Amino acid sequence: MERISLQDPVFATYAVAATVMILKAVAMSWLTVVRMMGAKGGFRSPEDIRKTPLNPDPNPAQLAPNDRVERIRRIQMNDLENLPFFLVAGFLFVLTQPSLLVAQWLFYGYVATRLAHFAAYLTAQTHDLRAALWTPGSVILIYMAARTLIVALGF
Amino acid sequence: MERISLQDPVFATYAVAATVMILKAVAMSWLTVVRMMGAKGGFRSPEDIRKTPLNPDPNPAQLAPNDRVERIRRIQMNDLENLPFFLVAGFLFVLTQPSLLVAQWLFYGYVATRLAHFAAYLTAQTHDLRAALWTPGSVILIYMAARTLIVALGF
Amino acid sequence: MERISLQDPVFATYAVAATVMILKAVAMSWLTVVRMMGAKGGFRSPEDIRKTPLNPDPNPAQLAPNDRVERIRRIQMNDLENLPFFLVAGFLFVLTQPSLLVAQWLFYGYVATRLAHFAAYLTAQTHDLRAALWTPGSVILIYMAARTLIVALGF
Repeated sequence: MERISLQDPVFATYAVAATVMILKAVAMSWLTVVRMMGAKGGFRSPEDIRKTPLNPDPNPAQLAPNDRVERIRRIQMNDLENLPFFLVAGFLFVLTQPSLLVAQWLFYGYVATRLAHFAAYLTAQTHDLRAALWTPGSVILIYMAARTLIVALGF
Repeated sequence: MERISLQDPVFATYAVAATVMILKAVAMSWLTVVRMMGAKGGFRSPEDIRKTPLNPDPNPAQLAPNDRVERIRRIQMNDLENLPFFLVAGFLFVLTQPSLLVAQWLFYGYVATRLAHFAAYLTAQTHDLRAALWTPGSVILIYMAARTLIVALGF
Repeated sequence: MERISLQDPVFATYAVAATVMILKAVAMSWLTVVRMMGAKGGFRSPEDIRKTPLNPDPNPAQLAPNDRVERIRRIQMNDLENLPFFLVAGFLFVLTQPSLLVAQWLFYGYVATRLAHFAAYLTAQTHDLRAALWTPGSVILIYMAARTLIVALGF
């Protein structure tokens, strides 16, 4: 049976989860841009306070950290610490031939809790809630990697 | 037809783009090292100002941020925010069976604009130019992920 | 011959190395949490000093950088600069059909030196030793990417 195909139900489940997470990650870059434009600040490179069509009235305060921009940067950093590993672990996990139901729970559960984590971080909920929403995704990731490792080792 | 093979023209196009981008990303680590050695500074860990054969004359100022080193670190951070997602989205996009011409435009267009973005960032061009060179790559990435998502959902 | 299968010895070697590295990367997130809990500090978001069940006695100093937490964050950053590229380059390298022996040396060599690098960074060994342990992994990564590029280009 062909596993690595968008026609395979388990692989398609992975591909849906993976592309939603990729689009979410890319959206953070755009959200950073939107917030930098809104604040006319939160820039990071010395050349960003040169006078240009997009920045007609520059001043050095534009290089100071901006709270609304830094929040998105922290969220993006959290994505970078998690998503690339999910993307690869999820792909390899498909090769262990999980049932469709297990794949759906794990992949869509990951996506759902990551999106909830994003909503909680964006709206500055408590550290406790953020931690509670981050943990299931991390556990799913550990499970998928550990399961793949066991199968790859031939156990 | 075998898709995931370096003999398949579309997959080979992806593999060329992916490996060029990986080599570019790895080069940032080496460029950071080169600039730290040149500046004898820009270090980040307290233990980096211990006297060693590579650092025979240490002093605490070596831990202060160095402009030339920080520039490469910002460029590398931009890579981390973009390339891992391109690498996975590009792989999945191959499975949607694009034509070779479309694949070449998207993959090589991504590589070309990322290398131009790097050149602009390295030489401290304006934020406007950097943004103009970052945008096509991000749009290509969004297109590939969205297209894969649609196919994986069965539309 | 089926290459992308956990039953294929070369691919299984890749999968073992990849999942061990993924588990290592995820462990950094958990180690950050452990050290933040131990120090009751090293937090980064303003909302993290709100009174909650997990932080019953908040104070603003909890947002100051904590040395033990920052060390893990630097180690994790080093992972992010290296591992995602290894994960993809390693996968593509399998498609060049290396011998099992070559694959084992490269993949397990990468894992061994990365784990040694982690041990050296965690225990604050000299910059020289850290560099010596980082370099082989980076060279292996460059070799795998360059070899794949050559094969993909049809040389």
